[in-house]
Amino acid sequence: MTQKPSLPKGTRDFGPIPMMRRNYLFNTTRSVFELYGYLPIETPAMETLDTLMGKYGEEGDKLIFKILNSGDFTSGIRKDLAEQLVEHPDQTQQVSRSMASQISEKALRYDLTVPFARFVVQHRDEISFPFKRYQIQPVWRADRPQKGRYREFYQCDVDVIGSNSLLNEAELIKIIDDIFQKFGLSIVIKLNNRKILAGLAEVSGLGNNITDFTVALDKIDKIGLEQVKEEWISKGITTESIEKLTPVIGLSGTSSDKISALKDFLSPSPTGVLGIEEVETLISLINAFNLKSTVELDLTLARGLNYYTGAIIEVKSLDFQIGSICGGGRYDDLTGIFGMPGVSGVGVSFGADRIYDVLEQTQKFPAFATSGKQVLFLNFGTEEAAACQAFTSKLRDAGIRCELYPDQAKIKKQMQYADQNQIPIVVLIGETERLAQKAVIKLMLSGEQTHVDFSDLASEIRKMI
Amino acid sequence: MTQKPSLPKGTRDFGPIPMMRRNYLFNTTRSVFELYGYLPIETPAMETLDTLMGKYGEEGDKLIFKILNSGDFTSGIRKDLAEQLVEHPDQTQQVSRSMASQISEKALRYDLTVPFARFVVQHRDEISFPFKRYQIQPVWRADRPQKGRYREFYQCDVDVIGSNSLLNEAELIKIIDDIFQKFGLSIVIKLNNRKILAGLAEVSGLGNNITDFTVALDKIDKIGLEQVKEEWISKGITTESIEKLTPVIGLSGTSSDKISALKDFLSPSPTGVLGIEEVETLISLINAFNLKSTVELDLTLARGLNYYTGAIIEVKSLDFQIGSICGGGRYDDLTGIFGMPGVSGVGVSFGADRIYDVLEQTQKFPAFATSGKQVLFLNFGTEEAAACQAFTSKLRDAGIRCELYPDQAKIKKQMQYADQNQIPIVVLIGETERLAQKAVIKLMLSGEQTHVDFSDLASEIRKMI
Repeated sequence: MTQKPSLPKGTRDFGPIPMMRRNYLFNTTRSVFELYGYLPIETPAMETLDTLMGKYGEEGDKLIFKILNSGDFTSGIRKDLAEQLVEHPDQTQQVSRSMASQISEKALRYDLTVPFARFVVQHRDEISFPFKRYQIQPVWRADRPQKGRYREFYQCDVDVIGSNSLLNEAELIKIIDDIFQKFGLSIVIKLNNRKILAGLAEVSGLGNNITDFTVALDKIDKIGLEQVKEEWISKGITTESIEKLTPVIGLSGTSSDKISALKDFLSPSPTGVLGIEEVETLISLINAFNLKSTVELDLTLARGLNYYTGAIIEVKSLDFQIGSICGGGRYDDLTGIFGMPGVSGVGVSFGADRIYDVLEQTQKFPAFATSGKQVLFLNFGTEEAAACQAFTSKLRDAGIRCELYPDQAKIKKQMQYADQNQIPIVVLIGETERLAQKAVIKLMLSGEQTHVDFSDLASEIRKMI
Repeated sequence: MTQKPSLPKGTRDFGPIPMMRRNYLFNTTRSVFELYGYLPIETPAMETLDTLMGKYGEEGDKLIFKILNSGDFTSGIRKDLAEQLVEHPDQTQQVSRSMASQISEKALRYDLTVPFARFVVQHRDEISFPFKRYQIQPVWRADRPQKGRYREFYQCDVDVIGSNSLLNEAELIKIIDDIFQKFGLSIVIKLNNRKILAGLAEVSGLGNNITDFTVALDKIDKIGLEQVKEEWISKGITTESIEKLTPVIGLSGTSSDKISALKDFLSPSPTGVLGIEEVETLISLINAFNLKSTVELDLTLARGLNYYTGAIIEVKSLDFQIGSICGGGRYDDLTGIFGMPGVSGVGVSFGADRIYDVLEQTQKFPAFATSGKQVLFLNFGTEEAAACQAFTSKLRDAGIRCELYPDQAKIKKQMQYADQNQIPIVVLIGETERLAQKAVIKLMLSGEQTHVDFSDLASEIRKMI
């Protein structure tokens, strides 16, 4: 019996052309990271359940893919739970929750941040800090699949941990600038600082209600100021506070205009003042780099995470409308949960799937990432094929990708192969050509054909590429 | 409460230096594959249980990591099974076997072959055959972990499917030769042909008992001929057959000596004769390539797989004693199980972990794969750091990996960082140097220091690298 094969929902195959493009994308980011002294690490796909659970909130825990223990896993099920399953078939939801940890002790990683924290703590004695690492690996989430959201997707994170210096933030922003320059994409880099947000909350009388304040504020791009205000009110933020905040949130002009205005407003809050100082220092460090991209202070940028303690960074594409394509910030207690407190770090994450979409939509993928193939020699028979082999070896030595069609198939079929694989150059050496020691080079795009002496063939093809 | 973090057994973290080396290993193989027109694909880590189960034998099925269904998974448990769990707590083994498929519908891939077959069938309409693909991804097996055997490890497979031509076998052998040349490793490439083994079985009167014959034969390297004979006898192979086989199995001399002797012996078997013809053609195709490595016909090579139908290929290291470091062969029905019969292919798989070990043991990893870092600028303070930044930008533009120590830490600590990260070149620009517009370059290996004018700094460092 044969099966009609299919994939688990929310997962994808990547064929040759998407793969060439993804490799271009990742190799570009990788090469820039390495120029700045960041090096790769990899962690296993599986982590212990203990490492992952409780790190992503209750909703996150539900989205973690758990791995069934191997072998006789039901022997770990507690008797009372098995009985409950038989006696209360209407309460499986609750039984499932309790049973999961009895039949599963491993799970697939949900992001790269928690495994990185686990890595740092576990290898603390081998690592020399500051530790600059990047990590490009897939993660898995049992999210409801929808357009642009998958159950398996790559994350591409770069972090430095164990250094408080703002030079790190500046360097990461320079890295962002370099990478998008290499991609040929225009971006704006938005900056904010968690301490400024804390200062705003303090000065406008919100006290510690900074979470409700920032969660709503973060949506301002999508829902507009009026709806943000409604959400604030629904969370118990007073109209008096909102009136105080509104002009500051709405500040326009250059970053330095905003900073001047903020200095006044935040002067009663030491935290706020510190935030402004950090932003000022960071901007002056960035200016020394002469970035190609625009950097702007955006007081509405919060990235919804209590996690950040200093700089907050987010990148938007100017070429194509899509959500944030890169983001991150400074955090102060990544490794605390694993027993290593007080280690400060800063990092950003590149949104590979979105950047891929922008490159595709704006046709910015370079030609070699469109077809990985360059030259095809047609196969006219054993002796002709042998003549071709000599040339393929020479071309490969020169770094040119080429292949001989393996079967002596109909020429039409071989040409179709060239077409479908988008191979730009086809070489024909039939019996006539072999005897005359000449080859025909056909450029597939224009259809143009030229006759070339065997002695010039390799150099001619090299010129064309 | 803090946790002491750990990894699931049989899994590994890869720190920066192992990762640089692994990237070198994979990039080298990747670049050679692409020169020959092979392109990458990737499939998801998860496949449906239907895709994987029943493809690796009963033992294999047990080693597949199954993923627990998300949410209320116990609602899928059949009532009678739940009851059995309560009533027969001594029979959990059997309950586990039945329950697995009720609470799990996905699993982690066990190899790259079955997902490749699934890929080909699922995308048959988009693929133009012959389809040349490579795939470098991790696989997962619930094997008992032991030295050199992990529960997560990378496979690196290259296959061409949809072509019967022996040119493919020849090209794959050339690819093997190229890759190990690039690694600077000496190898022997062993060849055999499944049809020759079938012919040997036929002529010596074993009939269809080819599996018992080859499974034992495959162990000859490890256990010797006498024990192979004992195993044959235990499987019911007659001493008469064994007497016929022994001189052929023991054939020594060059590949053409062996072929001459075989021609006589196998003449009654049309399959055997075809096998010899294939080997002869393949060897003459390989000879045209002028390989650097030795290729030898090894009649004891079987690779224990009924799977292969033609050429069988295996590579051994001559630099370091370890099992096979690469192997593969021709198969004729990879995709049949998914409803697409009669597609012939040939492929080989590179043993990444073993090749890594050989490169490490023979110290063949290139220097850049030992430390990814090249230049460190020490940080003596804000103004000095700013002076350094200008140079780091220049060096990075020239493709040199460099970094400025982010904190103004004690110089001893900064030098330790250079040491521990094996950074070969350290640049010191203190206040004196900044004012004199000169830098100190220190070579960490020799301890040698030179004073260089700012105007020459970038070009001097470029010369040193």
